[in-house]
Amino acid sequence: MSFLKKDYPWIQLPLITCAPMLFAATGELAAAVSAAGGIGFIGIGFKEEDLETQLSQATRHFQTTHKDVKMATTSPEVLPVGVGFLNWGANLDAALPAIKKHVPAAVWLFGVAKETMISVYGSWITRVREVTGGCTKVWVQVGSVADALHMTVDMKDSNSVPDVLVLQGVDAGGHGLKHGAGIITLMPEVRDTLASKGFPDIPLIAAGGISDGRGVAASLCLGADGICMGTRFLACSQTAITQGYRNEILRASDGGRSTVRSTVYDRVRGYVEWPEEYDGRGVTNQSYFDEQKGMEDEENRKLYEAEKQKGDAGWGVGGRMTTYAGTGVGLVKTVESAEEIVRKTREEAKKIIKCD
Amino acid sequence: MSFLKKDYPWIQLPLITCAPMLFAATGELAAAVSAAGGIGFIGIGFKEEDLETQLSQATRHFQTTHKDVKMATTSPEVLPVGVGFLNWGANLDAALPAIKKHVPAAVWLFGVAKETMISVYGSWITRVREVTGGCTKVWVQVGSVADALHMTVDMKDSNSVPDVLVLQGVDAGGHGLKHGAGIITLMPEVRDTLASKGFPDIPLIAAGGISDGRGVAASLCLGADGICMGTRFLACSQTAITQGYRNEILRASDGGRSTVRSTVYDRVRGYVEWPEEYDGRGVTNQSYFDEQKGMEDEENRKLYEAEKQKGDAGWGVGGRMTTYAGTGVGLVKTVESAEEIVRKTREEAKKIIKCD
Repeated sequence: MSFLKKDYPWIQLPLITCAPMLFAATGELAAAVSAAGGIGFIGIGFKEEDLETQLSQATRHFQTTHKDVKMATTSPEVLPVGVGFLNWGANLDAALPAIKKHVPAAVWLFGVAKETMISVYGSWITRVREVTGGCTKVWVQVGSVADALHMTVDMKDSNSVPDVLVLQGVDAGGHGLKHGAGIITLMPEVRDTLASKGFPDIPLIAAGGISDGRGVAASLCLGADGICMGTRFLACSQTAITQGYRNEILRASDGGRSTVRSTVYDRVRGYVEWPEEYDGRGVTNQSYFDEQKGMEDEENRKLYEAEKQKGDAGWGVGGRMTTYAGTGVGLVKTVESAEEIVRKTREEAKKIIKCD
Repeated sequence: MSFLKKDYPWIQLPLITCAPMLFAATGELAAAVSAAGGIGFIGIGFKEEDLETQLSQATRHFQTTHKDVKMATTSPEVLPVGVGFLNWGANLDAALPAIKKHVPAAVWLFGVAKETMISVYGSWITRVREVTGGCTKVWVQVGSVADALHMTVDMKDSNSVPDVLVLQGVDAGGHGLKHGAGIITLMPEVRDTLASKGFPDIPLIAAGGISDGRGVAASLCLGADGICMGTRFLACSQTAITQGYRNEILRASDGGRSTVRSTVYDRVRGYVEWPEEYDGRGVTNQSYFDEQKGMEDEENRKLYEAEKQKGDAGWGVGGRMTTYAGTGVGLVKTVESAEEIVRKTREEAKKIIKCD
């Protein structure tokens, strides 16, 4: 695992990363996760116009709040956080200037249709490496063995194999493949298949359902080099979500029953650009129940718009505001700082399994 | 974990069990799994008329094939295998005589509707314990935190809390809850919730996607006391499935994409008694694709019946014979004996994590 330390020298093992949750994962959160020895990812999504602000926010945090934390990087200009894009919407040309200026340690690509993966991710990988002289590593998130092969074997000739693959299992909250496996099988099958195809060493990050040190230790047993948590960081004081959303994360339990994969949360909010193979996992709410009973999208969307007026009361049982969350939501019971989450989770994992 | 050894003194840790796969898991397979230090379960399902034959077959194996293996049990009359029932169909009165006569080490209950769990499982638990003087332990399979609570907290007053809970995640092959979590979150959430409700020590067996030592080690990290494999034992020389079925298990890869949860496999085969909350995971085949395109069940069933005539050629790409399998199917690549599977998997797990 220690080869990750070569590219991200400030990290402590086992590596814990924060998912680039759109709107929620800010520069502040990302900086705090990295300062605790993880890798924090800013959730830029398709809003590359926010890159400058968020990367500056992270920079400021390292200079102020975290100024006593030693953040060794591969090169002095590297900013020890990552940035996540949703590449069905993000604009490469518009994103490059801020990437070139701030040199984030990693960018994380996700969300295009299968048939454009090679062209879109390939362009991003090539040009991001170009403008940062390879200082910014590229992570690509996939959810199947086929896509992991596609991103390695099929990218080899153009010299644009990603530096890291994030394997997302179906327990994950938010967007992912409609149809897939949990990391219990996805991780070992990808590991074996890539090894047999000449990629035995590509770092694999496990995502989807990991909520505490037990999930981290389990992921390492399955073959992961590090892990990513999203839902756990929703109960974090530095995450930019409403109190209503956070309350619902703390309330929901029995995560396999209280969450569901669906496209209804996109449809009521008007996010219709996601490619067909993706949906998102969220806590079941009235938008979902009404859709299941046959309500048309137009009516459901109107009710969603009206619900917005309720503020925090729009979340929860009977509410309509979207609570993206993974099946690990029932394991998330208290709000902590990002630093506490990273350190506690890492220590829990180390008590269960030897990690270096 | 070692408290499992009290009730099943022949086992070796970590405990590996074989799922009671209907028709496939015979007395021979169960005996072989137990002889290798696991616990083999015979898949009786709803055909309690087969109990006498299968339990006799297991007995014979211990007296012949495995006669040199020391099979310590809690009492000389205990037969060191388990028996699994599908309790929407199994008849308690009809099953009891063979249970009383052969005293299997465990019975495994599964598959009734939520609202009858207390009454049906309660009766089985009480009467099985009665006729075997408590020598036969009772395992109940659940797939949610709510059902785990139901089987403990709500069974306490009638003194019929099961001896063991099997937690089945949605990666599992064959039947299970339509809507649930993978064991990455199901196991730790159930563990924590039961501990907080006064059941910190009830043994929990992880099922669903575990296919090799990595999955075993991961399950132990998540809090499991032992694990259950089904799909892996389909590629076993002692399992009673057709060559066509076995070939399809060996062929299928990318398990999250090549399998799907559906009720279509029940509908084409005429198994309509499963309660509404269950479906089954199998390798996608022509029955499934046609159903997705809108084919009516009647037509689909006719095509299935015709397909039966093809024998082994009815399985595979374009075929219609059902291949129940979990998302771990892509990790199953070779046919081995049950003894090899149990020993290899146990040793792999022990290399990854300390297990006692």
